[in-house]
Amino acid sequence: MRVIFHNLVTLEEASSALLKFAKPLGSEEVDIAEAYGRVLSRDVVAQVDVPPFDRSTVDGYAVVAESTYGASELTPVELKVVGRVEAGGWPNVEVRQGEAVEVATGAPLPRGANAVVMVEYTQERDGVVKIFRSVAPGENVMSAGSDISAGEVALRRCTRLTAREIGVLAALGVKTVQVLRRPRVAIISTGNELAPPGAPLGVGKLYDVNSYALAASVAEAGGVPELVGIVRDDAGEYRRALEAALSSSDVVLISGGTSAGVADLTYRVLGEMGEVLFHGIMVKPGKPTLAAAVGGKIVVGLPGYPSSALMIFHTVVRPFLLKLQCLEPDPPAAVKASLAVGVEGAKGRRALYPVVLVGRGGSYRAYPLYAESGAISVLARADGYVVVPENVEFLAEGEEVEVRLFEKYRPAEFYFIGSHDPHLDAALARRNIKAVYVGSMGGLMAVKRGEADMAGVHVFDPGSGLYNTPFVEKLDIRDVAVVGLYEREQGLMVQRGNPKGVRGVEDLLRPDVVFVNRPRGTGTRALLDMLLGEAARRLGLTLEEAAAKIRGYTHEVKTHTAVAAAVAQGRADVGVGVRYAAELYGLEFIPLGWEQYDLVVKRGALEKALEIAAELLSDLPRGYRRYEWSGRVKLLR
Amino acid sequence: MRVIFHNLVTLEEASSALLKFAKPLGSEEVDIAEAYGRVLSRDVVAQVDVPPFDRSTVDGYAVVAESTYGASELTPVELKVVGRVEAGGWPNVEVRQGEAVEVATGAPLPRGANAVVMVEYTQERDGVVKIFRSVAPGENVMSAGSDISAGEVALRRCTRLTAREIGVLAALGVKTVQVLRRPRVAIISTGNELAPPGAPLGVGKLYDVNSYALAASVAEAGGVPELVGIVRDDAGEYRRALEAALSSSDVVLISGGTSAGVADLTYRVLGEMGEVLFHGIMVKPGKPTLAAAVGGKIVVGLPGYPSSALMIFHTVVRPFLLKLQCLEPDPPAAVKASLAVGVEGAKGRRALYPVVLVGRGGSYRAYPLYAESGAISVLARADGYVVVPENVEFLAEGEEVEVRLFEKYRPAEFYFIGSHDPHLDAALARRNIKAVYVGSMGGLMAVKRGEADMAGVHVFDPGSGLYNTPFVEKLDIRDVAVVGLYEREQGLMVQRGNPKGVRGVEDLLRPDVVFVNRPRGTGTRALLDMLLGEAARRLGLTLEEAAAKIRGYTHEVKTHTAVAAAVAQGRADVGVGVRYAAELYGLEFIPLGWEQYDLVVKRGALEKALEIAAELLSDLPRGYRRYEWSGRVKLLR
Repeated sequence: MRVIFHNLVTLEEASSALLKFAKPLGSEEVDIAEAYGRVLSRDVVAQVDVPPFDRSTVDGYAVVAESTYGASELTPVELKVVGRVEAGGWPNVEVRQGEAVEVATGAPLPRGANAVVMVEYTQERDGVVKIFRSVAPGENVMSAGSDISAGEVALRRCTRLTAREIGVLAALGVKTVQVLRRPRVAIISTGNELAPPGAPLGVGKLYDVNSYALAASVAEAGGVPELVGIVRDDAGEYRRALEAALSSSDVVLISGGTSAGVADLTYRVLGEMGEVLFHGIMVKPGKPTLAAAVGGKIVVGLPGYPSSALMIFHTVVRPFLLKLQCLEPDPPAAVKASLAVGVEGAKGRRALYPVVLVGRGGSYRAYPLYAESGAISVLARADGYVVVPENVEFLAEGEEVEVRLFEKYRPAEFYFIGSHDPHLDAALARRNIKAVYVGSMGGLMAVKRGEADMAGVHVFDPGSGLYNTPFVEKLDIRDVAVVGLYEREQGLMVQRGNPKGVRGVEDLLRPDVVFVNRPRGTGTRALLDMLLGEAARRLGLTLEEAAAKIRGYTHEVKTHTAVAAAVAQGRADVGVGVRYAAELYGLEFIPLGWEQYDLVVKRGALEKALEIAAELLSDLPRGYRRYEWSGRVKLLR
Repeated sequence: MRVIFHNLVTLEEASSALLKFAKPLGSEEVDIAEAYGRVLSRDVVAQVDVPPFDRSTVDGYAVVAESTYGASELTPVELKVVGRVEAGGWPNVEVRQGEAVEVATGAPLPRGANAVVMVEYTQERDGVVKIFRSVAPGENVMSAGSDISAGEVALRRCTRLTAREIGVLAALGVKTVQVLRRPRVAIISTGNELAPPGAPLGVGKLYDVNSYALAASVAEAGGVPELVGIVRDDAGEYRRALEAALSSSDVVLISGGTSAGVADLTYRVLGEMGEVLFHGIMVKPGKPTLAAAVGGKIVVGLPGYPSSALMIFHTVVRPFLLKLQCLEPDPPAAVKASLAVGVEGAKGRRALYPVVLVGRGGSYRAYPLYAESGAISVLARADGYVVVPENVEFLAEGEEVEVRLFEKYRPAEFYFIGSHDPHLDAALARRNIKAVYVGSMGGLMAVKRGEADMAGVHVFDPGSGLYNTPFVEKLDIRDVAVVGLYEREQGLMVQRGNPKGVRGVEDLLRPDVVFVNRPRGTGTRALLDMLLGEAARRLGLTLEEAAAKIRGYTHEVKTHTAVAAAVAQGRADVGVGVRYAAELYGLEFIPLGWEQYDLVVKRGALEKALEIAAELLSDLPRGYRRYEWSGRVKLLR
């Protein structure tokens, strides 16, 4: 059963289709102590003046300003003190020319007075005060209503209440205020493969991410999420869940239906219950999004992949929820950046790429995070996303792009860019260093361009027989140091008991053995190919001929732990990677050799790099070892 | 009793003094459905792979990629279908060369398979599937652990949980998570003059603003506010309130003590209870800030003026509260802008000026909002503030400044800059137009510079005897229209019953009459001075001689309603202003004349201006009237 998208709409069309249904909800009364973040449902008209009376802004003497003219240190003016007023008190006297009333800061000004002389410029004795400095009318006085005047619209309808607006309400004596009701948003996840977090995961099952990620997104947008939970792929169950959700909430979000059958179910059931507004958006990811109006309420069917669901929430649903609260469907905050790596367009669809921002002080590089559209971790690492227009085939490295931010961007103090190492990663985490994993060569280039303070690198140069340092020289990276870190043990991983009896790389050529590999360009793959080349020569084969015999040689996975997982779950008999990953999965490990993993750092970051190295070297897990340059500067240029 | 500030500290020193005491609080367990905005108290290590198995990302056939090499529309490859897997199912078959297993999107990949052919490129009949397109290894497969690998640090300690991180937790099957306890912040307001909002306001009393504005600020910074309420200026009561607050909370904020006596009380009591960390900051506003450590807990004494208290909260307390939650004391978001009006430095202290931002698309003008330091409305209108360094005497108009934002800046769609009119203000509010009130001349200059879309103007040109249009020509403002709006009635306001028997401006010269005036440069003042000049001539006096006889002639207040308030409260017998304000306060009104109030608009805004004019003219309150150009274009150039 295949879904046919008849009329794909653009992101803008999808967004406007919903906004047409965004009428603000009713209002409710809340105490101002609970009103933070709420939105006013009507104008607030001041019933009192703020301040309610003319106040002195200093400690001093209230006077008729004209009495003080000509006063100076040498020619003080003498005034008769006719009374005193404290803050919170009320003056019963009137001040005339030649008279003064002592006032405290915040005290009401007596009738007739139009200025206050600061106490610093006075001297009182026996009911007479000497004034050593003249004041102008209005000086040191905050006049009644000058902050807010009674009758004025002090706050406007649709204002979101922050600390400052709540201050205004308190100043007006307003204790409770009419605010818009927050939209209640029911959230349904669909799919037979889903299991709720906290429960054990059966075979073939995945945890339900969307219920929780969407609930948090709804809260972030000012809505009240209502978790319905997981609904199975059954038209009856589906319809009942939708009807219940519609009766108790203002908006319904259904996610799932990544599988064609489920998407079709959503489309069919919503078509029966109401009017489908659109079905399919010209965007990648997010094409299978649909929306319907059922009895005036909006139901949005979001993609099942969490990252797709969140990107579409951000671009289509969030503006709608804001508008329901009378807030501008705010254009996402954005910064300009240059692309660190080229990205492809999506052939007639708009493409959204999550990116990590690197940079400080207004000059940014955007590192696209490639991943299958299901990857939630990618989104968690991203600062925002770039949009590649429909008609663009390729955006090259260095092109200026606009990065739309998920949140306010907080530049990191320190950037690590390079190859992933689990032991190092934990140390970076403890120091709150932002890490972007793009491989050794990517890290070297990032240091050269000044984007990274530090790179993690493990690349072997067959010409010199050395790791890492030759590349710093070949790429002519200046003002950097290479800090020797450690060697990591590489090898083959097999299930406990080694059921296939694997002893070395020769065994990978056996027809009964399924292998899982690392990608070209990784240090691990380079090592495997070197050893495989040697084995091939012994067997009288070329490397290519040997590789062609290996079942799964071209099955490349991105991390050491993904290799271990494939073996642990029986999808492969043997894989290649670091010992650390093998031990994590309780696998047996057949050592192949050691490689050097070093830090390449900007000179200014040398001290921090040495500190990190010292910490890591003081507690090396199995599969790691020191070598002659560990903790020492290997190269400085 | 005067406070002596012995060692004033800088803002940075004040901030660091607190940060030294910022140790993260303990942790607590929360459900991920409630975890939005919370901060992780420890690293989250993945216990499972995400995804937990190799998944198909499409509907299609799982194959050994090498089986499909050479397949095309013309030369399809035929594979034997050996099984089917649904999403949520589990494959018991193994795929070999020449075989295929049908898979749904999200279904687990069978052992041996390393790629999936999309159903679009296949045709199945009688257990055999024709493949019309080859696939590469890994194509349409999301491999186990490729998103998150078991054993990996998936989220780091001190991460603030947004929708995306909560998605990661759900994907890992984590239902409850350890987060940092939020800081409990007790808030005390001091001052005998304070009354709680919601209660009637006695004479000489003000509503307590700081309790509520600070509570919202605390919530905004992730803390839990605890309102203690108002404490009177008494050492014993003060000490008891502090002790109770310290026992129940992590941090205490006391505001008030603007009056010297109270500030001294705070200093003395805190000095007895613990160690005073600093007393006085070199900043304006905010000098009388102090902080103490009592039993390891921080107490901050904030200024009593709400706007001062909030600015110091923003610069000193907020970073501390964030750090208590293990969050970076984030530098406030900032934008560059050019100053619209010059501002003065604070003679050796750093000066903070609230500003309104005007502009779109990266080019901003910052309008300083002048006000006494007590003004809360000013802060509510401000987008952020500019900092004038200690050693700068004056920052001139046009200088580039950095505006530190209170919140994310949202550019308005339409800017009104000019003179204040209460009837117009309400119409702007209904349209969500951002209004900046800087007087008629300021408005004209803002239109000329292109910052304002519209200005409200009422200035009389004695040379031509005309209002407004002569100034548009004199200032050579191009591409603008002047839309005639209405005339406003100006006059004298007296208490009901007119106890002093005032009939006209001559009566202002009587020695038993106290007057309250509008500032020089306003249309109202210009009218009064014209009439006063005529009266003086009749009496054989100059204008200056006549003015010198008026008690309160130099007592100028900033708004029409402030004039009315002064009369209503008996601080003056008579004032001058628009009828609208007099009626608001139930005063009697003695008409003096009418003035023309017009809109000066950019050509592109003409239609909107005519629409606003039509709306206002359709419902004119008393004190307003149409004139020949009302609702029509008076000048277009």
